[in-house]
Amino acid sequence: MNIRRSMSASGLVSGTVLAATWIAATRLLSIAPAGSIKATGTTATGTTDTGTTDQGTGLSVVLEGLHEPQISTEQNIDIGDPQIGQIGNYYDELYDPDRERLGVVFGRFEVRYKKVGGAVLTYYTEDIYLRDGIIHAEGWADFNDVKNGRWVGYPAVGIDGAYRGLDGRREWRVIEPHQPVEARIILAG
Amino acid sequence: MNIRRSMSASGLVSGTVLAATWIAATRLLSIAPAGSIKATGTTATGTTDTGTTDQGTGLSVVLEGLHEPQISTEQNIDIGDPQIGQIGNYYDELYDPDRERLGVVFGRFEVRYKKVGGAVLTYYTEDIYLRDGIIHAEGWADFNDVKNGRWVGYPAVGIDGAYRGLDGRREWRVIEPHQPVEARIILAG
Repeated sequence: MNIRRSMSASGLVSGTVLAATWIAATRLLSIAPAGSIKATGTTATGTTDTGTTDQGTGLSVVLEGLHEPQISTEQNIDIGDPQIGQIGNYYDELYDPDRERLGVVFGRFEVRYKKVGGAVLTYYTEDIYLRDGIIHAEGWADFNDVKNGRWVGYPAVGIDGAYRGLDGRREWRVIEPHQPVEARIILAG
Repeated sequence: MNIRRSMSASGLVSGTVLAATWIAATRLLSIAPAGSIKATGTTATGTTDTGTTDQGTGLSVVLEGLHEPQISTEQNIDIGDPQIGQIGNYYDELYDPDRERLGVVFGRFEVRYKKVGGAVLTYYTEDIYLRDGIIHAEGWADFNDVKNGRWVGYPAVGIDGAYRGLDGRREWRVIEPHQPVEARIILAG
């Protein structure tokens, strides 16, 4: 599992930023349970933490190559021709590339608009409970992209634990219908 | 299980209303799977369908004495002193008083405001998938009421199947901590 939490050069610009970085780093270490922060390199598929383009803490989290099987799901979508107001809910598990269980996802989606060009604008709302914190994600995806196995995603923000105050994206794609999706979560401070 | 779907006198006021009532009734019968519409009377705990106080279809659904065990739940609430922004999610089953399985509930709650008087305003959002339709419910509850075993509830609306277009309330109360809650759903056309 490739979880990067690095301090970049931008964290050293001023004493204030540096202090914030250290506080954040301390919090990460104190909240994360043993074994949850790893950088084995064997499954490294992450992007590089740049951390130099904004005023953030320089912390980043990259979770890639995740395996996300559904434990339970209910929906009333007409898959062939989704209708406005149709919804679904799902309760998934998240595993890292080594098949170590990271946590669960509670999600909901609702078809809200159909564009003239054919896009089926669907609003996803998710709470992702990982071992060392909670991430909330919500936003739009085109249900056609979901069906066609393209990557979809929406903004995500850490709301507790090691991820609190980080923001970024939660993304996933269908590999094969009715099979676990591939997922990734990329957050930065 | 006490499911009442009655046509009241108000449905006979005009041809238009009557037609709507019959269409609704036909839809109910065609959508509801065999065995899901019952009025055994043995478990009757329902209120009477008045149906005469508005311009509705006269249809009503009363599900009472429901048993709602949690299958899965995650939350980060400080139970003793809930904080704004803390959340929970749950995936429950619903059983009728005879312990016949009716469906499942996907729910989410978020602490949003704390009133000066002590109320902890918590927003609940639920999708309830029953055998013969889907109900969406959302609204406010005081988390203190939840903790103290008082009835809480919020508006509910049928969004598919037999319940489509009916509205009313979804309510529940904690009988004993960490045990299945008691629930009821009351909708009218």
